[in-house]
Amino acid sequence: MRIGVLTGGGDCPGLNAVIRAVVRKGVQDYDHDFIGFRDGWRGPLHGTVVPLGIPAVRGILPRGGTILGSSRTNPLKEADGVRRIKENLAAHEVDALIAIGGEDTLGVAARLHDEHGVRCVGVPKTIDNDLSATDYTFGFDTAVNIATEAIDRLHTTAESHMRVLVVEVMGRHAGWIALHSGLAGGANVILVPERPFDLDEVCDWVTSRFRASYAPIVVVAEGAVPKDGDLVLKNASARDSFGHVRLSGVGEWLAEEIERRTGKEARTTVLGHVQRGGTPSAFDRWLATRFGLHAIEAVDDGAFGSMVALRGPDIVRVPLAEATARIKTVPAALYEEARVFFG
Amino acid sequence: MRIGVLTGGGDCPGLNAVIRAVVRKGVQDYDHDFIGFRDGWRGPLHGTVVPLGIPAVRGILPRGGTILGSSRTNPLKEADGVRRIKENLAAHEVDALIAIGGEDTLGVAARLHDEHGVRCVGVPKTIDNDLSATDYTFGFDTAVNIATEAIDRLHTTAESHMRVLVVEVMGRHAGWIALHSGLAGGANVILVPERPFDLDEVCDWVTSRFRASYAPIVVVAEGAVPKDGDLVLKNASARDSFGHVRLSGVGEWLAEEIERRTGKEARTTVLGHVQRGGTPSAFDRWLATRFGLHAIEAVDDGAFGSMVALRGPDIVRVPLAEATARIKTVPAALYEEARVFFG
Amino acid sequence: MRIGVLTGGGDCPGLNAVIRAVVRKGVQDYDHDFIGFRDGWRGPLHGTVVPLGIPAVRGILPRGGTILGSSRTNPLKEADGVRRIKENLAAHEVDALIAIGGEDTLGVAARLHDEHGVRCVGVPKTIDNDLSATDYTFGFDTAVNIATEAIDRLHTTAESHMRVLVVEVMGRHAGWIALHSGLAGGANVILVPERPFDLDEVCDWVTSRFRASYAPIVVVAEGAVPKDGDLVLKNASARDSFGHVRLSGVGEWLAEEIERRTGKEARTTVLGHVQRGGTPSAFDRWLATRFGLHAIEAVDDGAFGSMVALRGPDIVRVPLAEATARIKTVPAALYEEARVFFG
Amino acid sequence: MRIGVLTGGGDCPGLNAVIRAVVRKGVQDYDHDFIGFRDGWRGPLHGTVVPLGIPAVRGILPRGGTILGSSRTNPLKEADGVRRIKENLAAHEVDALIAIGGEDTLGVAARLHDEHGVRCVGVPKTIDNDLSATDYTFGFDTAVNIATEAIDRLHTTAESHMRVLVVEVMGRHAGWIALHSGLAGGANVILVPERPFDLDEVCDWVTSRFRASYAPIVVVAEGAVPKDGDLVLKNASARDSFGHVRLSGVGEWLAEEIERRTGKEARTTVLGHVQRGGTPSAFDRWLATRFGLHAIEAVDDGAFGSMVALRGPDIVRVPLAEATARIKTVPAALYEEARVFFG
Repeated sequence: MRIGVLTGGGDCPGLNAVIRAVVRKGVQDYDHDFIGFRDGWRGPLHGTVVPLGIPAVRGILPRGGTILGSSRTNPLKEADGVRRIKENLAAHEVDALIAIGGEDTLGVAARLHDEHGVRCVGVPKTIDNDLSATDYTFGFDTAVNIATEAIDRLHTTAESHMRVLVVEVMGRHAGWIALHSGLAGGANVILVPERPFDLDEVCDWVTSRFRASYAPIVVVAEGAVPKDGDLVLKNASARDSFGHVRLSGVGEWLAEEIERRTGKEARTTVLGHVQRGGTPSAFDRWLATRFGLHAIEAVDDGAFGSMVALRGPDIVRVPLAEATARIKTVPAALYEEARVFFG
Repeated sequence: MRIGVLTGGGDCPGLNAVIRAVVRKGVQDYDHDFIGFRDGWRGPLHGTVVPLGIPAVRGILPRGGTILGSSRTNPLKEADGVRRIKENLAAHEVDALIAIGGEDTLGVAARLHDEHGVRCVGVPKTIDNDLSATDYTFGFDTAVNIATEAIDRLHTTAESHMRVLVVEVMGRHAGWIALHSGLAGGANVILVPERPFDLDEVCDWVTSRFRASYAPIVVVAEGAVPKDGDLVLKNASARDSFGHVRLSGVGEWLAEEIERRTGKEARTTVLGHVQRGGTPSAFDRWLATRFGLHAIEAVDDGAFGSMVALRGPDIVRVPLAEATARIKTVPAALYEEARVFFG
Repeated sequence: MRIGVLTGGGDCPGLNAVIRAVVRKGVQDYDHDFIGFRDGWRGPLHGTVVPLGIPAVRGILPRGGTILGSSRTNPLKEADGVRRIKENLAAHEVDALIAIGGEDTLGVAARLHDEHGVRCVGVPKTIDNDLSATDYTFGFDTAVNIATEAIDRLHTTAESHMRVLVVEVMGRHAGWIALHSGLAGGANVILVPERPFDLDEVCDWVTSRFRASYAPIVVVAEGAVPKDGDLVLKNASARDSFGHVRLSGVGEWLAEEIERRTGKEARTTVLGHVQRGGTPSAFDRWLATRFGLHAIEAVDDGAFGSMVALRGPDIVRVPLAEATARIKTVPAALYEEARVFFG
Repeated sequence: MRIGVLTGGGDCPGLNAVIRAVVRKGVQDYDHDFIGFRDGWRGPLHGTVVPLGIPAVRGILPRGGTILGSSRTNPLKEADGVRRIKENLAAHEVDALIAIGGEDTLGVAARLHDEHGVRCVGVPKTIDNDLSATDYTFGFDTAVNIATEAIDRLHTTAESHMRVLVVEVMGRHAGWIALHSGLAGGANVILVPERPFDLDEVCDWVTSRFRASYAPIVVVAEGAVPKDGDLVLKNASARDSFGHVRLSGVGEWLAEEIERRTGKEARTTVLGHVQRGGTPSAFDRWLATRFGLHAIEAVDDGAFGSMVALRGPDIVRVPLAEATARIKTVPAALYEEARVFFG
């Protein structure tokens, strides 16, 4: 059997570990043959391939990024996309595809399988941990570790100068990284996209922390927004004519507002891409490796249209279509748990 | 309500995070009062206590070890142990106990509750991750990260000299640390207590790795043993008259045997106590914090005789007695998964 | 003898290690008595003090920041500043001062000693490593390690998406952090304040890196500026009416210009305060500790008006006034060495 | 010009960084041609070579170990060694050699140059930092960081159980790693080969630390020895018939003796090979890179028979013969500085 592998969407520590596990097990246990498609769905769309045997996956387990490259190309939006993909799979004699990616990448896999009969197995990937079908995705633990280490460092600089330090972490639609790193780092305020924040309340927490003679750390997900009354953020974003999303980020805006309202010096750190690069944590290497082993087993079992997922300590299979149907956000009860540490 | 807290057994990164969460939530949300018992069950037995309020738990979240000290004292084996504990709890007006510990510590809590009416709630702790009632225990992720980082480092030194490197990790009865760090570190052989190993097979894997022009890393749990035929290990242990368990450890013995049988240079690294000290990983801080929050809720709910546990992403309550009844070992199927990477 | 200690200027990993060494040696070897002044020169100016004995310095060696707090207060610009300091020193019976700080803090110490007879010994501190009198200052190695680790992580994310990644590091007037972390991290362009950069040349390096099928990392010191012809940066800064210095930072501007000129996607990471917080590297702890030991020896020798400094592996004494006279910038020859790795 | 490169002796983080810098500068600036000799002097002796161009050195900067392999082969002890090396150099048209190694490797280079006219330039390498001609060697800073991080972790486990923790670090003849990591890690006793230790004094320090209610960390270099009176260590070593040097190591012996004499539980951690493997610290990458750049310049200048060395912040050249003449040990005065922290 010849199997194609691709990685789509934003990069994420652990992608290479999945690829390695897929190839090692596929070649050694099942005598499969592999081919790598370059840059997500752009690969099958344009027929750009790379060889993918045991030598290609040597030494890649601890390396971040993806040896196959990635893109956000959606072939379903391209003229004749489905036909071109099917032709390229046929031209390379590919019997099945393993697609490693997030909502978008797997959504394409689901439709290619369900509507067009392409034999696909999915491996979920999102650094934001916001896929509802799996307890965790690889990359998330690494991102949380990096953010937590940054928060640890910022505590001492905040204390020395009695300043507010705002840390902006990833999470456009879900606040998992903010919640986990905020709890692990001992943050005094955690703001997530799921719950629009009240700026007065944030300033109260900040002030209360200073009253206890400590300096506050505010962890804010990039997608967190103030309550409706606060239109400033939207204005701030609007005023930039160059499309600099970062420049009008919530972190900068928040530090400025806190400083203006409380009279305390505030500084921002935007962690940005360091959260998604570099060597994966041990947990992410373990999870990615197991996802890879189970994905190739799913191919061997003919379980096409399914995706591997983590449930408790077990790897299970779920239908691709269902898996990408709904984003997993931070439940209100879980956010409430963290509030005991605010202020 | 006045609540006593104690930590028993071997130390483990995350103990302080539990204590902090218990006290923060207990004081702020429920207006409870806390007292710390020193050195595990020795504290209630001898009535040695320390104050435990908000100031005592400031800044301890990222610190390894336990501010309460620990011991392996079993009060049920002491003359009049139960009576003395009950008297000391009464003398300090303690209404309930939160016991943080492993099998032994929680086994005492279970019996004190079930047989003697002492109001106890348990928080599971074992760096070995071998408690069957919970998916994970805090400390384990930290240990796996440390072991994985060591394996990463040893790869390059093994390659440079084309030597076998044997890494002995913790795990007397269960091979979780060996399995996870071995998978995450890209080990070429992983040996666990659950499956007595065949020295010939180990040497075959080692030799096959060298044939591929790479140097092998062998990860061995301290409790792994060779198959019955190999009596050498027992002899080796016996020959030491000073009771040096470490000196006759399986790691050293294995390196020696591999060197003798394959003719390849072999070296051992025994990771030892570094695996259980120092700052907890983000995951362990998060898990320990949530365990603490849910333990104090259990006390408030009057759920005595129970223990908090992780199931998937949720914290649940399980009966203390059941929780400590059975050790969780590495299932054969899970170990088999890893074998594709051997050799 | 009673000795006052203060820390001034921006915080820096290693400040606590200096304080600990000063106190440990002063108390144990010389039987001195210590008092801590709060928040840099604001402490002696306002007479705000904290006790500073062996218990106060327990456990602070690995902690970032400063237990004494810091400020940028310049007492020489305050009405009656010198008189108030002398009165407060007399009121607290302080015989000598150890001032730990950078150019500004030590400049005050120099003038207080030289012009007003205050007995001062200085310990140099600048995370930027730009004091000419000493080979290295503590904090610098930690900052370089943090920046290098970030660059390591950014390589994999750059490669996966074939993007330019611009990393803005500290260094307003000197490019030491950029040069060292850029070399250590394998950056493809390094820009320092000492050498105004040519945007065309930067874009050539970026393009040439892509031609070799790799993605470029550009490390830029926050104080780096384009050559005179490029007025864009100044304009960019000017257009922000809220005083967002960060927002108009050179990193963001550079990514935008590179993207516009080369047509390649570019992203920026501004490392910011994480570079100066958290636990010091082993080198910084060692250097800070030795600086502390030698500073208290200088006091005991009556070597007032001097500062400790590192020369090769030795700690020497230099006059305070001379030490702060001149900033140490990156020599042209050293910068040239790095250019072989550009592009 | 065609230049051969080899790495000899124990591996050390930074070797690859030297090789990369040599090749990058040699090819780009001087248009040289390179060839790699495998496994130290074994390579020129047996004529085993690998190609060494820009592609071979891509991505190796952050990788520990050496892509050229290493050995301790001394060709001067082989029959006809010199003649065979000269023949092999001629056969491969090698004009000059860059030898990267420690005392032994560079000693061979010195004799080959001085006595046999082989054109050699040396780059010093010793993880122990014991070469007198250079302030620091690469690899040392990495080892000290790893040892310090381990000591940090061991503090918390020592405190939790009130145990003595003995940490055995590298250093057979010189105590640099023990001294630096012991100071940086806040050890309570540091023992180095340069100063035979008095076991009674060690036990006094241990006891005094416990009296202050803290648990002691003892850092001991593997080459440290007790004073003449203590013959136990030699006996202990002697009793092992399998030549297990590790098993009778000073660390294990010391823990046993401390436990026996003070009645306090003591445990040992032998850091071993993790100290010399894995990714180099930023300092070591910077130093190794600069050594490489200056070594190829020395070749270009015809400065054969010399070695590059670090003096303060500068790279200088010293005669190879002189460089390897004398080991650099820890001066008594420097060791005395550290004693204020003992006990």
